[in-house]
Amino acid sequence: MSSLKPVLVVAGIGAGGGTGGATARAFAKLGYSIALIARGTDSLKSLEKELQNSGAEATSFPIPSYEHSSIKSAFESIRARYSSTQYSIRAALYNAGHGVWKPFLDITPEDVKIITETNIEGSFAFAHEVLSDFKQNEIDTTNGKRGILIFTGATASIRGNTTTSAFAAGKFALRALSQSLAKEFGKQNIHVAHAIVDGGISTPLSRARRNNSEWDQNEDIRLSPEAIASSYVYLASQERSAWTWELDLRPAHEKW
Amino acid sequence: MSSLKPVLVVAGIGAGGGTGGATARAFAKLGYSIALIARGTDSLKSLEKELQNSGAEATSFPIPSYEHSSIKSAFESIRARYSSTQYSIRAALYNAGHGVWKPFLDITPEDVKIITETNIEGSFAFAHEVLSDFKQNEIDTTNGKRGILIFTGATASIRGNTTTSAFAAGKFALRALSQSLAKEFGKQNIHVAHAIVDGGISTPLSRARRNNSEWDQNEDIRLSPEAIASSYVYLASQERSAWTWELDLRPAHEKW
Amino acid sequence: MSSLKPVLVVAGIGAGGGTGGATARAFAKLGYSIALIARGTDSLKSLEKELQNSGAEATSFPIPSYEHSSIKSAFESIRARYSSTQYSIRAALYNAGHGVWKPFLDITPEDVKIITETNIEGSFAFAHEVLSDFKQNEIDTTNGKRGILIFTGATASIRGNTTTSAFAAGKFALRALSQSLAKEFGKQNIHVAHAIVDGGISTPLSRARRNNSEWDQNEDIRLSPEAIASSYVYLASQERSAWTWELDLRPAHEKW
Amino acid sequence: MSSLKPVLVVAGIGAGGGTGGATARAFAKLGYSIALIARGTDSLKSLEKELQNSGAEATSFPIPSYEHSSIKSAFESIRARYSSTQYSIRAALYNAGHGVWKPFLDITPEDVKIITETNIEGSFAFAHEVLSDFKQNEIDTTNGKRGILIFTGATASIRGNTTTSAFAAGKFALRALSQSLAKEFGKQNIHVAHAIVDGGISTPLSRARRNNSEWDQNEDIRLSPEAIASSYVYLASQERSAWTWELDLRPAHEKW
Repeated sequence: MSSLKPVLVVAGIGAGGGTGGATARAFAKLGYSIALIARGTDSLKSLEKELQNSGAEATSFPIPSYEHSSIKSAFESIRARYSSTQYSIRAALYNAGHGVWKPFLDITPEDVKIITETNIEGSFAFAHEVLSDFKQNEIDTTNGKRGILIFTGATASIRGNTTTSAFAAGKFALRALSQSLAKEFGKQNIHVAHAIVDGGISTPLSRARRNNSEWDQNEDIRLSPEAIASSYVYLASQERSAWTWELDLRPAHEKW
Repeated sequence: MSSLKPVLVVAGIGAGGGTGGATARAFAKLGYSIALIARGTDSLKSLEKELQNSGAEATSFPIPSYEHSSIKSAFESIRARYSSTQYSIRAALYNAGHGVWKPFLDITPEDVKIITETNIEGSFAFAHEVLSDFKQNEIDTTNGKRGILIFTGATASIRGNTTTSAFAAGKFALRALSQSLAKEFGKQNIHVAHAIVDGGISTPLSRARRNNSEWDQNEDIRLSPEAIASSYVYLASQERSAWTWELDLRPAHEKW
Repeated sequence: MSSLKPVLVVAGIGAGGGTGGATARAFAKLGYSIALIARGTDSLKSLEKELQNSGAEATSFPIPSYEHSSIKSAFESIRARYSSTQYSIRAALYNAGHGVWKPFLDITPEDVKIITETNIEGSFAFAHEVLSDFKQNEIDTTNGKRGILIFTGATASIRGNTTTSAFAAGKFALRALSQSLAKEFGKQNIHVAHAIVDGGISTPLSRARRNNSEWDQNEDIRLSPEAIASSYVYLASQERSAWTWELDLRPAHEKW
Repeated sequence: MSSLKPVLVVAGIGAGGGTGGATARAFAKLGYSIALIARGTDSLKSLEKELQNSGAEATSFPIPSYEHSSIKSAFESIRARYSSTQYSIRAALYNAGHGVWKPFLDITPEDVKIITETNIEGSFAFAHEVLSDFKQNEIDTTNGKRGILIFTGATASIRGNTTTSAFAAGKFALRALSQSLAKEFGKQNIHVAHAIVDGGISTPLSRARRNNSEWDQNEDIRLSPEAIASSYVYLASQERSAWTWELDLRPAHEKW
């Protein structure tokens, strides 16, 4: 890789204890500087602190929403912070999501709006910024990449179900975007990948909601954010002759 | 069926010479009254006239956009026109679409907005109105249905490609919605179906664009709106023990 | 269509009360002569009689197994019975199947053999004979077809599950065959289709096994062979500009 | 892991320069002993030698065909060579394949036989032996596995095409098997995975056939067996909370 310091941009870190946070930590350990984009200022700041305390460069870029203009402006700040003379955005994770699980007739226009904003408007804006930057990068000779853009999907990315009409619509759309981009930008040595996370993830929030220590302690039945992040690190390392667009991830005992 | 006159609601009729128009004509021949929803007032009026001249009851309901509020207000007008003491909405086709075929970095926020409006905001609103009405219907004893809701999909419903990131995102989302609804509402004897139209459709617009009479005259290589409409009529007739959620439709010689 | 009498060949009729039998009856009503291929001589003879009593031409061609040579020899007999100066094979249904539902380690080499024989060896041989004949046919100007070849699939055609490793392997293979043939022979105006039958079918055998008259009488929760056959008749009627390769069929209330 | 030495069993090594051979080398480097199963005695012996020269334990087990009895007998020899008091089969790769690319009517019964033997009879027998052994293993506490069984798939695993009816039938079937096993044996902490290799692989054979050094030297346009093997090593390392059943692998510039 060039002498520029690699940067990972993560959008969507929830309360910091999930996939986005774990991915930030994993890439920080590999020497990446981290740019964090999310809606919740408190969690952002706290993750930023934690990463800095561990010796990493990390900066948070709070946004009010996943609207196009918010994403665009976050990237302007990122580029100001991580100037292209010293840094190079090499990895990006679009991990933003919003869960709506409701009988269809209970879904409100507001639910639909936030689903489309999170899964489409935001992802298109994020990908636009990331790919524009990637195109300027040199190819990393170790793996043939100018950069890697990863999307976090879910079971609902490939299957609609009785209470997931809105959630699945968003996740299907995100998968379509990722496949289209993988096909278009692979030729430019930009790696685009999509992970189908199939199962419950153990996060501070999900643990509090379930309040079931057996579930949390049994790694056979739930995903850990660190394991998901490991797969993202693996994807980033894949060499050019064998890139993965899509993989599924589920606990050993998951029924599917 | 009950003594109420059945109504078909179609959203999306383009210039009137495509799938939406052909479906309106086909159901009109079966005795349905027709409600037409679309953006283009001229085409709407002209199709309305044509249907009326052929002896059908048909009314057009122009909308400024596929925003939730427009759809909602169109349905209020439809219900006023086709009062529930005499009519019963029994079939609905969501045929609205918007084509964006561009390299990803050329896609504008406006492209993304219209894609999400047409494929998600509008389809959710349309399905909400239709399903709310269907639930009030008696079951038609000939086929076990309270109503049928059909969505027009495309190749891009199942495959993203280099210039289809926006178009495919919309179509994937629409397919997710249709599958979720099929699962949720089948149990209530409401039939939801999705057609993957794979190939070019011969319409006045596509004929003008191609200006290739060979293409138009060779039914082996392009779809006719009437043939698509026939498949929708078939879906509406399927009896309760064997309903189709999804079928593909393509010309005999199509390469796929 | 030409002045030659159309013939439907069905392979796989079980005890005669299922999809194969219903399809034979449905096409007989449309004026097709029927050729029945299956392993069970008694059921074959009984269905043959029944069809003849209803005024149809029908002949049974018992085979000892779905081995290549058996199928080949059955077709020689079919061609002798339905000579090409008077008849033309226009439709064919490969409905043979063999159910193996077992934990994987209980599956025997014999199970694997019969699964491959029924789903691959037999289907390849059947398709070879049928397509060789179809290629000689004139195109039916009403629908653009030289002939239609339909395969009966199942949920296991698209999803392997804990006890379906053998069954799904066979059904996946059959689906691959049908898709490959649809792509190769569509260009020659031969229509190849595949139906994913998702749910329990009400047949004399399944009724005896379940012994649950509620199940049988409730058409919302199980498929009827006649409804499946209707969809096959519909596929045969599709005109050349909009052919379906694949559709799914399930009862209105099926959970999926 | 326990004190027993881990063994990798590979079935299908072609001429030794492809995926099977590369996987053997990669696992040997990790300390696995290697058992090689294949039809070609010469290539087997030569790969065995090469692995031994590199310091690995490796033994070849030639088979006359992928018939059940051959596989079974190979495993008896493997168990005799790698006794369970000192060794433990921990990883297995089913990499056997047979390419048939022909217009459908040119496919012979012998083509069908070898396709079913390689993709179904052989894979079922192989999986039966491997899984029976895995069930006896302790769980490796580092990744939650009693063992991992990987299948090599291809584009034809998910798409039939004009000249791939036989090849795709075999590959679809193999995929069905792998998915069924992943679901059934995940609960027993046995990891089953399937790789969709989409593109040309650079092997001595493919290089000789193409005779195009540009193709071989451009890693953006063809897969290297070593890169595929890396993904298999990664799968074997995945910890229990996030296992992958399926991933695709293709060169950066592949059109798909």
